[in-house]
Amino acid sequence: MSSEAAVVRHARREDVPAILSLIRELADYEHELSSVEATEEKLLSTIAFAPSSSTDLSPSPSTTEPTSPAKPARCLVLVTPEGTTAGIALYFYNYSTWRARPGIFLEDLYVKQSERKKGYGKRLLVELAKEVVAMQGGRLEWNVLKWNEPSIRFYESIGATMMSEWVGMRVDGDGLTKLAGLLD
Amino acid sequence: MSSEAAVVRHARREDVPAILSLIRELADYEHELSSVEATEEKLLSTIAFAPSSSTDLSPSPSTTEPTSPAKPARCLVLVTPEGTTAGIALYFYNYSTWRARPGIFLEDLYVKQSERKKGYGKRLLVELAKEVVAMQGGRLEWNVLKWNEPSIRFYESIGATMMSEWVGMRVDGDGLTKLAGLLD
Repeated sequence: MSSEAAVVRHARREDVPAILSLIRELADYEHELSSVEATEEKLLSTIAFAPSSSTDLSPSPSTTEPTSPAKPARCLVLVTPEGTTAGIALYFYNYSTWRARPGIFLEDLYVKQSERKKGYGKRLLVELAKEVVAMQGGRLEWNVLKWNEPSIRFYESIGATMMSEWVGMRVDGDGLTKLAGLLD
Repeated sequence: MSSEAAVVRHARREDVPAILSLIRELADYEHELSSVEATEEKLLSTIAFAPSSSTDLSPSPSTTEPTSPAKPARCLVLVTPEGTTAGIALYFYNYSTWRARPGIFLEDLYVKQSERKKGYGKRLLVELAKEVVAMQGGRLEWNVLKWNEPSIRFYESIGATMMSEWVGMRVDGDGLTKLAGLLD
């Protein structure tokens, strides 16, 4: 019931302080608080927000700012009946070449420690699945830490498959500058 | 020297037949040809292309069509001095929450079998790294099949790190429709 009564809507600019606070809580949970470089200002310039004046509780993505290479992210916020921003789902649009279809990659899903066990995580995932279906997209994807078995079991229980045959590769920091200049 | 002489530019609509042929060759290499649902028509409606009239050999992303949720993908093509489309890099824009910065996710990189060992794969990766640096982005990422050790060693040699602690989760097909309707 809690999950049904809560509101899930696209983030507005005024949600940014609450979003940053949840991002910091998530990083702390993953023992990586020192890695958080996000600030309110940076979030404001990289997330595509819904209009502040919106009276619609769950505006469709088409009413939010357009996404762009500089602003690729969208964010859903879950607000409890008491008015607490209890959870966020930060995502961007991905692409399946073989299917030639867009989809959604969920970069971060987080529900406040004090608001757990109310179905809020599932509610956010359902809203994202709805958006993928509405856009005739191919898939909803995300990454999880391998040691986080309770989460993996939960994700599998709602229909997710583990992509065990694949591993991610990343270039960042100095490596990125070096790679960019490799043939100069 | 081959790599230097080749041209890398954003794909135009007229490149689509060559792109589809490379996508099919890649799927065949991964023993998954039957999974390819992409058609010329679907690629045309989901990739953000550079203008056909462009005389600039490597137009910046800002001169291509804007990306959007329905059209999230961009594609680089590598054209040899002989005029062969020898390789493609299909990508979209991702997001790092902790850094509050955009980046690039390389969905598919492929160089034609007959055009290997000329540095074309590296050249495409370097061009993507340049775009990430130019957009002040945080990272360049992609996935690789775990059994593909020659590729992994090559990627590590140009500065990539394996994200061994993470595993991908995916919901698609019937699972996606089911998840979207889970709370109805």
